[in-house]
Amino acid sequence: MKTLFRYNWQVREDWYKWCEGVPEAELLKVRTGSVGGILHTLFHIIDVEWSWIRGLQEKPDFQETFDGYQSLEKVRKLDAEFKPEVENFVLAWKDSMEERILHDTRPDGRKVTFTHGEIMRHVIAHEIHHIGQLSVWAREIGTKPVTANLIDRGLNITIQ
Amino acid sequence: MKTLFRYNWQVREDWYKWCEGVPEAELLKVRTGSVGGILHTLFHIIDVEWSWIRGLQEKPDFQETFDGYQSLEKVRKLDAEFKPEVENFVLAWKDSMEERILHDTRPDGRKVTFTHGEIMRHVIAHEIHHIGQLSVWAREIGTKPVTANLIDRGLNITIQ
Repeated sequence: MKTLFRYNWQVREDWYKWCEGVPEAELLKVRTGSVGGILHTLFHIIDVEWSWIRGLQEKPDFQETFDGYQSLEKVRKLDAEFKPEVENFVLAWKDSMEERILHDTRPDGRKVTFTHGEIMRHVIAHEIHHIGQLSVWAREIGTKPVTANLIDRGLNITIQ
Repeated sequence: MKTLFRYNWQVREDWYKWCEGVPEAELLKVRTGSVGGILHTLFHIIDVEWSWIRGLQEKPDFQETFDGYQSLEKVRKLDAEFKPEVENFVLAWKDSMEERILHDTRPDGRKVTFTHGEIMRHVIAHEIHHIGQLSVWAREIGTKPVTANLIDRGLNITIQ
């Protein structure tokens, strides 16, 4: 579990570096297939990870929209603000937390419960999925996307 | 670990159903951003999962290309052929297998070693990443992609 989060954080950093070489207009351009454009998708990844990790801790959510974060610098700053708390939670994860229950109200008003393990895996898959979308857009604007390989990243250490 | 494989298999099945409603020319069309087009990407997902799971078992790899599998039916048939062995391996996975070593030769000739756990996570991330790419193409041809949500799929059972 932890390794997949560390993979996501590393890939996300690689995408920030990739963004440095792309004109801001391309990063902000609204595109088809995700939640807006490239930076908006990165903002969405940060927002969703943070919101669920806050939820698992029974802390209030983040309610802002992308409107206030329309530059690479602002998105990175937001990520840096959230990261320590997210990292603390993830790196303290234990298998015994798997079956803890989160009570949630879905956007359509349904009251549901999730296990904490399910939410952790949902957050992992959520980021990888959106990063896949970025990789298509990167090719569409004629650039080489960040590699999605999990191997060859120095992540083969024993914690998982 | 197991739940993320089960998530991927379920999402893949959903994409096959999605493919049923899309003209074959769209499925075969070569697109920008992945390994070819929609069906080719699904073939690639199956191929990569199979090849690594075979490798972990020290069994020979699969050497065919997409040339012989250019229809939804053929891709599904290949998946159905490979699935029982993949499933057997994944569902018998134990944390104690994490540190086993796989010796591999990379495409550039380098001899490397991976842990089995690292490869399992690589296979998981590989599929989710490529499915993210499909979701962009689905929107580009004006259709609704399969949901990537891991929650609400009935996967919150205790095995992981």
